[in-house]
Amino acid sequence: MSTSADFLEEASTSLGPRGFTRDSDLVEPWLTDWRGRFTGRACGLASPASTEELARIVRLCAAHNVPIVPQGGNSGMSGGATPDESGHTLLLSLRRMNAIREIDTEARRVTCEAGVVLQTLHEATEDKGLRFPLTLGGKGSATVGGLISTNAGGSQVLRHGSMRALVLGLEAVLADGQVLSMLTPLKKDNRGFDLKQLLIGSEGTMGIVTAATLKLLPAVAERVVIWAGLPSLGAARTLLLHCEDSVGNALEGFEVMPQACLDAVLKHLPSARAPLEGRHAWHALIEVVADRTSAATLRERCETMMAAAFDKDLLEDATMSASEAQAEAFWLLRESVAPAERERGPAVQHDISVPVEKMPEFVDTTAPMIEAKWPGTEAVAFGHLGDGNVHYHVIAPAVTDGLVWQKGEGKAISRYVHDLVTEWGGSISAEHGIGQLKRDELARLGDPVALSMLRAVKQALDPQGLLNPGKLV
Amino acid sequence: MSTSADFLEEASTSLGPRGFTRDSDLVEPWLTDWRGRFTGRACGLASPASTEELARIVRLCAAHNVPIVPQGGNSGMSGGATPDESGHTLLLSLRRMNAIREIDTEARRVTCEAGVVLQTLHEATEDKGLRFPLTLGGKGSATVGGLISTNAGGSQVLRHGSMRALVLGLEAVLADGQVLSMLTPLKKDNRGFDLKQLLIGSEGTMGIVTAATLKLLPAVAERVVIWAGLPSLGAARTLLLHCEDSVGNALEGFEVMPQACLDAVLKHLPSARAPLEGRHAWHALIEVVADRTSAATLRERCETMMAAAFDKDLLEDATMSASEAQAEAFWLLRESVAPAERERGPAVQHDISVPVEKMPEFVDTTAPMIEAKWPGTEAVAFGHLGDGNVHYHVIAPAVTDGLVWQKGEGKAISRYVHDLVTEWGGSISAEHGIGQLKRDELARLGDPVALSMLRAVKQALDPQGLLNPGKLV
Repeated sequence: MSTSADFLEEASTSLGPRGFTRDSDLVEPWLTDWRGRFTGRACGLASPASTEELARIVRLCAAHNVPIVPQGGNSGMSGGATPDESGHTLLLSLRRMNAIREIDTEARRVTCEAGVVLQTLHEATEDKGLRFPLTLGGKGSATVGGLISTNAGGSQVLRHGSMRALVLGLEAVLADGQVLSMLTPLKKDNRGFDLKQLLIGSEGTMGIVTAATLKLLPAVAERVVIWAGLPSLGAARTLLLHCEDSVGNALEGFEVMPQACLDAVLKHLPSARAPLEGRHAWHALIEVVADRTSAATLRERCETMMAAAFDKDLLEDATMSASEAQAEAFWLLRESVAPAERERGPAVQHDISVPVEKMPEFVDTTAPMIEAKWPGTEAVAFGHLGDGNVHYHVIAPAVTDGLVWQKGEGKAISRYVHDLVTEWGGSISAEHGIGQLKRDELARLGDPVALSMLRAVKQALDPQGLLNPGKLV
Repeated sequence: MSTSADFLEEASTSLGPRGFTRDSDLVEPWLTDWRGRFTGRACGLASPASTEELARIVRLCAAHNVPIVPQGGNSGMSGGATPDESGHTLLLSLRRMNAIREIDTEARRVTCEAGVVLQTLHEATEDKGLRFPLTLGGKGSATVGGLISTNAGGSQVLRHGSMRALVLGLEAVLADGQVLSMLTPLKKDNRGFDLKQLLIGSEGTMGIVTAATLKLLPAVAERVVIWAGLPSLGAARTLLLHCEDSVGNALEGFEVMPQACLDAVLKHLPSARAPLEGRHAWHALIEVVADRTSAATLRERCETMMAAAFDKDLLEDATMSASEAQAEAFWLLRESVAPAERERGPAVQHDISVPVEKMPEFVDTTAPMIEAKWPGTEAVAFGHLGDGNVHYHVIAPAVTDGLVWQKGEGKAISRYVHDLVTEWGGSISAEHGIGQLKRDELARLGDPVALSMLRAVKQALDPQGLLNPGKLV
């Protein structure tokens, strides 16, 4: 099958030269995911400027049976925005749809188009004395539409939840080109189940998110970032409970990393320095924030919390940020873990969750199992302990051909990790989604009842199978 | 068509005498909704004791094509748990499935069966120093399964969200008798879109909720309830913004009622007294709470907040609860509005929402329109201003035959109110659901794209149309 000349001509006429191109110089940069794991082909790149234009091109695709892969910042972790190699797919970029339609400071919400970049959203809301609380490493490229389609997480999920918890309204184009308009920001609406939930996290397979109304919060008036050294991951979990008990809702982040990760980071960032003098098996980064209504007592409450933690022997050492610059410096260490790990050499990465209370035991038990089964490997976990979600990397033995290892031993290790996670009642995708990366693993390990529901709903909403084929379901 | 003797015999054998009955003395009390709006018939009452028994009876229904109406406490507002008059339907009670399976105090969550009554859940969690924050008038009969199936709201939605925000995991039986097990309490899980969202708020039409894992919060350590007298609903909205600004997250409820409602309540509760000396066009009940981590400064913060509100002339008068008994007394007034209103005579009720910031204007504009169009009626709004959701009652002119009026003029008024709400971008069901009460109105006024999605998903998950027929879709 080749994509019909009729389709290409109509698409070109419909969207004009800025909205549709087949020029390989322009298309090619978007055909490989940013981690270089997946490369595909496309019959063209559509970049509509409005929901109407987008709906028109989707109707055209439906009429000609052309599959569509929607793409935002192309910074996903699972290849969800990369087409297959057939060359029949239309790559549909949302990047031109980047208007912030309205910021309502009184109602604390923003309505913006899918192509708005997260960092742009942060800056626009900060200008109004508000903030959008979700943030993550790829904020300079990740778009609102991509964040919604993948139900993105990041480092503040502990307090504010993932994207799902922040979406108040949604606009989307369905597989047949109809527009679902649910931007109306009603706090309460019980007209049947909440249709927008079908779009959030469905990776573009049920519809294409074109705009959203998002929840905003009062700006942070003060924050304290604490760096703590700990003897074990279990101790980190105990400290987390202590912090939740002490400052409740003010606790905004609780991230962990082992000493090996911190070492890699300090090598990766030559100008950075270790927050603590000594070495510790584990390190925790703890963020406590206050808005205007509670800023007065924040530092005092943190001091009380940490004094009690020392008294109870919950940690080995700790330091508290004395300035905003120091708070930033602590976060920079955390945010550099992933790039620093990549510099250490070939590895397989896993984005897993198990029930929060089981996470320390899970890591302590399974890391030695993996290292024993595949001698020379090193299993490293770091990330969002507060959410029961860590990034679990297994680093290849030294002097290995990375690609060969990843496709052979690495693949076997990933299956083994996913088996273990499933056994412990966890998820093989805590926040990165399924995409094409984990589709086989989801089919292998997913609950058959859940999978059959997912497929039935997909079939009902996209009977031609045109929306992001080969992803998720 | 008569329900086959085979089915009835197999159901009886499968569930035993405690699990299945056709005795009309036992069945009949459940065939009319508690407000007496709807009465139906059933071929029998099934009361399974476990998920396995329930799945077995659903498979039997699927084999014999017998429709199923699930029922919890039978305290819904929209007739969603009442069967039609055909007599072919099986009434499926969840009330025997009332085990609280586990309360995990450290992880702050409870796993319980669908038949657990809300008040029982409150008591069980309070015993552990925790609380389940959702509460409403029918807490003595409403069950967890019903609350989830209708995505119930109540008076603390402002801070904690409706049921959807509190469900961490779900177990449900699908139309073909398969069991969907999603009780695993993972904080982060991105394996496709969140299937449990399809069950929440779908009124038993997509599956039958059998158990759930729910979020718990630390117990309230202190609370202050403030009663404020206001010149207008617009002033109430301004005061709400002031309170949000002053105490942020500590603001847990903000309920409003006009003087007429308070008068009716004081008549209904002869022993109650008015919180303020004077009369005011509107009254607001404001709840501010603190857990252990923030109790120390609560009263002080409330005093600062109210002093500033007086300074800025945001209200006419106010009083602050000096004791827990007084706090309870203020809430009793609010909770008595609905029964007190019923005593005033025949009325049509509407459970509506419009965007929060438009609510004062909506009520001020539309109430006189209704009263002018139908002379002798009185339009009264009260409820959850913080959520943009009020209960909007239109009281019949005096000396009217209630039933005749409700079916004639009352019905026309409801259509008019729903038209207005739709025009203002609102919802005709903010929290009570659609059931059979508003199914025609949803079909008339709902967004056609949203309705077709709803129907496609329903068709995909229940192709025989056996689950709660005649409700919602």
